[in-house]
Amino acid sequence: MFHMKRIAIDMDDVLADTTVKIIQTINGLLDKNYSYEELMSNQLARELFLKDYLANNSFLWQPGFFLDVPIKEQAVEVVKKLSEKYEIFIVSAATEFPESLKEKLIWMKQHFPFISWTHIVFCGHKYMIQADYLIDDHEKNLKSFLGTPLLFTAPHNLHIGEYQRVDTWDSVANLLL
Amino acid sequence: MFHMKRIAIDMDDVLADTTVKIIQTINGLLDKNYSYEELMSNQLARELFLKDYLANNSFLWQPGFFLDVPIKEQAVEVVKKLSEKYEIFIVSAATEFPESLKEKLIWMKQHFPFISWTHIVFCGHKYMIQADYLIDDHEKNLKSFLGTPLLFTAPHNLHIGEYQRVDTWDSVANLLL
Repeated sequence: MFHMKRIAIDMDDVLADTTVKIIQTINGLLDKNYSYEELMSNQLARELFLKDYLANNSFLWQPGFFLDVPIKEQAVEVVKKLSEKYEIFIVSAATEFPESLKEKLIWMKQHFPFISWTHIVFCGHKYMIQADYLIDDHEKNLKSFLGTPLLFTAPHNLHIGEYQRVDTWDSVANLLL
Repeated sequence: MFHMKRIAIDMDDVLADTTVKIIQTINGLLDKNYSYEELMSNQLARELFLKDYLANNSFLWQPGFFLDVPIKEQAVEVVKKLSEKYEIFIVSAATEFPESLKEKLIWMKQHFPFISWTHIVFCGHKYMIQADYLIDDHEKNLKSFLGTPLLFTAPHNLHIGEYQRVDTWDSVANLLL
């Protein structure tokens, strides 16, 4: 029997533009004017935003937040093509956020109807996941991964240099298709 | 650094007496009189119950079902002792049941407060979970597991002969402690 290689794909800030939704929420709560582009280009803005975020992130535990997170450009198209060549598991560190779990299933069904519940994993630590690749935005998940780690670029990981980096879903396509 | 061996433990019919709650629910819905003891000892009763269950199990998708499932005897005591010697992950095939996810987290916090959200996994397939042992009641999960599979006895697995079997949490303690 032929076995496809397996890719584990994170949700927040990989499939989903979660930081974009967080910025909108923080701007609304604190009457600020942060933008994703500013966080990508300006370290001082990142530091100020992080401070505001850490002091005001209880919305992550409230119902509704994860339901309408925007989707990353080209994510659907590239994951669809990847799924013809690889076995895809979606692996989200979500058990910290009990309200998010059902919402993340609904979100997946809406945007990625070709991925079944059998291939969606909600967990805390990811180091017991067996896969050939892990596409993730957090170093803590990549550094303990036994396969090939791929760092998906986000404002909070720009300082990390040790991993192969993918900036966009087009970069993932170039690398893996 | 010393690495503990890792045990993945299923929830339904391993930590939780889910079949007991299902029997109560089916009895209430259909005015029947099934009992766990009868299902364990009588094959005809198992067949009749399975038919009733498959035709009437939509309650599994409704809110509330998983919140008050009874807990298996000695499960807390033995898992607590195991957690001193092994790394414990709870791995439940729950993403088929969106309403169950938050309820299962609440249930875990209530009965197993010493197990953190970092070590709770909700998934579909379990074959990408890396562990030394898997304690589970379903052959489909055990047969693709790469470590040592342990079959936790339940009425629906009495016919399976190929796996090392544990009938109770005391049996698990005898084997692993």
